[in-house]
Amino acid sequence: MAKELKDLTKRAENYSQWYNELVVKADLAEQSAVRGCMVIKPYGYAIWEKMQRQLDDMFKQTGVQNAYFPLLIPKSFLSREAEHVEGFAKECAVVTHHRLKNDPDGKGVVVDPDARLEEELIIRPTSETIIWNTYRNWISSYRDLPLLCNQWCNVMRWEMRTRLFLRTAEFLWQEGHTAHATKEEAQAKAIEMLNVYSDFAEKYMAVPVVKGVKTANERFAGALETYTIEAMMQDGKALQSGTSHFLGQNFAKAFDVKYINKENQLEYVWATSWGVSTRLMGALIMTHSDDNGLVLPPHLAPIQVVIIPVYKTDDQLQTINEVVNPIVERLRQLNVSVKYDNADNKRPGFKFADYELKGVPVRLVLGARDIENGTVEVMRRDTLEKHNAPLAGIEEYVKNLLEDIQQGIYDKALRHREEMTFKVDTWDEFKEQIEKGGFILAHWDGTTETEEKIKEETKATIRCIPMDAPEEEGKCIYTGKPSKRRVIFARNY
Amino acid sequence: MAKELKDLTKRAENYSQWYNELVVKADLAEQSAVRGCMVIKPYGYAIWEKMQRQLDDMFKQTGVQNAYFPLLIPKSFLSREAEHVEGFAKECAVVTHHRLKNDPDGKGVVVDPDARLEEELIIRPTSETIIWNTYRNWISSYRDLPLLCNQWCNVMRWEMRTRLFLRTAEFLWQEGHTAHATKEEAQAKAIEMLNVYSDFAEKYMAVPVVKGVKTANERFAGALETYTIEAMMQDGKALQSGTSHFLGQNFAKAFDVKYINKENQLEYVWATSWGVSTRLMGALIMTHSDDNGLVLPPHLAPIQVVIIPVYKTDDQLQTINEVVNPIVERLRQLNVSVKYDNADNKRPGFKFADYELKGVPVRLVLGARDIENGTVEVMRRDTLEKHNAPLAGIEEYVKNLLEDIQQGIYDKALRHREEMTFKVDTWDEFKEQIEKGGFILAHWDGTTETEEKIKEETKATIRCIPMDAPEEEGKCIYTGKPSKRRVIFARNY
Repeated sequence: MAKELKDLTKRAENYSQWYNELVVKADLAEQSAVRGCMVIKPYGYAIWEKMQRQLDDMFKQTGVQNAYFPLLIPKSFLSREAEHVEGFAKECAVVTHHRLKNDPDGKGVVVDPDARLEEELIIRPTSETIIWNTYRNWISSYRDLPLLCNQWCNVMRWEMRTRLFLRTAEFLWQEGHTAHATKEEAQAKAIEMLNVYSDFAEKYMAVPVVKGVKTANERFAGALETYTIEAMMQDGKALQSGTSHFLGQNFAKAFDVKYINKENQLEYVWATSWGVSTRLMGALIMTHSDDNGLVLPPHLAPIQVVIIPVYKTDDQLQTINEVVNPIVERLRQLNVSVKYDNADNKRPGFKFADYELKGVPVRLVLGARDIENGTVEVMRRDTLEKHNAPLAGIEEYVKNLLEDIQQGIYDKALRHREEMTFKVDTWDEFKEQIEKGGFILAHWDGTTETEEKIKEETKATIRCIPMDAPEEEGKCIYTGKPSKRRVIFARNY
Repeated sequence: MAKELKDLTKRAENYSQWYNELVVKADLAEQSAVRGCMVIKPYGYAIWEKMQRQLDDMFKQTGVQNAYFPLLIPKSFLSREAEHVEGFAKECAVVTHHRLKNDPDGKGVVVDPDARLEEELIIRPTSETIIWNTYRNWISSYRDLPLLCNQWCNVMRWEMRTRLFLRTAEFLWQEGHTAHATKEEAQAKAIEMLNVYSDFAEKYMAVPVVKGVKTANERFAGALETYTIEAMMQDGKALQSGTSHFLGQNFAKAFDVKYINKENQLEYVWATSWGVSTRLMGALIMTHSDDNGLVLPPHLAPIQVVIIPVYKTDDQLQTINEVVNPIVERLRQLNVSVKYDNADNKRPGFKFADYELKGVPVRLVLGARDIENGTVEVMRRDTLEKHNAPLAGIEEYVKNLLEDIQQGIYDKALRHREEMTFKVDTWDEFKEQIEKGGFILAHWDGTTETEEKIKEETKATIRCIPMDAPEEEGKCIYTGKPSKRRVIFARNY
């Protein structure tokens, strides 16, 4: 039974190690030769591509267009928006030279000291500055608004401690940057995109999320408001999965972007930005997978169904092929992504373990006996349950099963989150509960000072003020001062 | 008639200026604040996206999978493959530091001198080195081969003289990197991908190309053979539009990538790489466009058909809307990308000029009179011819017209190339002809020395040795030495 594939640390033993091993063993990604930068392997990239394609369609349905802005940002741009530079400019890759030359003292190449740049360039950690510098020339009248651009690209933040997908120096993402005539329109766009993210997370990733507002302390550098979707991983920690920012007129003022309104007056433009990244891969993996490997939601699985023949003779294989080929054909017509793995250089047991590890949602196994009986063995990856189903009509059956699995893993994740969400009203209870993980709904006095003290003492941060949090009189868990609603505390990735 | 849009330099006056203006005026791209780096605007990016989507499908049909490798390459990697570093390492962006800090002497930020990297990192000019360093861990047995990866990404070469799309410091491209067990298989893959490129150029871009082999002098740094597709622009200059390289075992040896063959012996792996870039946008523009603006091939046009109403009263517009809306619906069902532009803040004349500039292949204009007559005015962008067509069945009519235009502009470009391709047998004739532009088919003695002298004296380079060049005894145009086939000389972009 292909023991090497199964040789995966158990979640209960060491969740963090389980994750690290799984990402590598399931061929999703690996560390590269460059500190903190990952290689996304073909199987991992295929999942990311499905995410991209779906998100991209959803963005376009809201009127967003794609564009591309430069990788490099002049150093001086970063200091234009004061709060932005505070939050971002510290750890980033700096380009100082534009030429190498042969080492005069020996082998290899050295940096040519004569090729120093007049102004250093920064590899984008995010692109607000260069984009708003560009928008200045694109916007002059209310007729040019709204301007709704997105780019899919790589960005770089020189993280000290990295983990595959969750925190890497280079990562892939999309960043949307919109410009609006009014505050209300910009605010509405920021919320609209948050809703796109939460729809995507729930309907495609099968990851339930809480929509909320970040506290001032956790806001994006330069934003007036940061909206977030927060997911809970199996270990009870929170993972921020996407953010959408209402930027007010901060970047418009920093880069002097004005427009003439309908009343013929000059005004600064209102802005949003929003992004999700390859970090979503981490959320996907940690929400659903188990001790046998990945569990992928059918809506994002590169292979939704694998069919494996079990046979002794070439004749038997021939017979199975004849039954399977039309099934493959019909599944494809139903837009089901299917792989028929009849390669003869691996044993069925090895294949079973491998596709389990890779999280393929449905496995069909077909032997000579099954064909005689007109049945096929069906395994669903999420529950590992096996049963027989009639061969006749198997395509529709599988199609429905995929939807069942999609719903099933969402429900399971939601149940887990609900079971791991606690209302807490005393500081002692808070300190005790936070050690066990989960989301804590507690009152907070609204000050950054208290927020930071709680973090210092417990490593818990305020993940968000949930958008649907009901008004409720209460007292801050830490200071006892009055509070109007509960916020979500958790430890986080 | 929206004169500002038409204010485009004529090709006959100054072809180069016409191109530069057109790229900007048609909203394809513009210079950014960073020297040599472009901003690809939404309309330009939409064309690039259609190219990407189509090429990506074609790659996948040959078994290629996408992956992602790091942006940054350790400096030492570049000197591992000796010829490769000769050809590439000179002009590139060098990352030397990983942190900024607040300027202690005043405003803004400065590079933190304490954050110097131990080894400098280079922004990838191409990724052979980092990919082959990765492949070492992915390949151990013949069962791991072939390994067929592609990545869509940005790359950077510090070009001194840049032109939008044609030569920019940062550009977008795809780079395929394959590993094979045998020389023959790798050579066949390099040719297969060249054929994918030529199919794409001819069937989607409507750009006829010559497939050929580069001379040793023009080969990719590190390749044993470079295959190319060469297109002719309207000014008679050549544009290299895609290359595919047979890399032999050079990178496998430099990065120690071996596999155990079926006979249980260790062997070095054989390699190919192949790429096309946003340079294709330049080829597309310069092959078809005219003094009125872009002419886009229907297979890549983001908007294939625009419908413009002409009306005086709101009632008339209402009537036209009622006729047009179902046409739009049916066109979409036929997979035709259509825009109904009934915005009332621009006059029809402005719209006509704008969509002409943007190269929309088919324009339908509909007025109240047309509806009475059951006809519609049809304009095809390639010939600017207008005629009336019956409203009944207009969708199929348009669909066919789009195919006619696709074929028509290909035929026109092919005719142009044929008319501008000359067999030349004397040096005087060569020098005279090269001034007039076009491809020159001439004999060459096969030496780099002669190739370079011809380039020095005439600025003509050998674009390729065409794959279908017939054997023919002849004498080198320059030295009179014997030659077995004609090669293509041209000036080039």
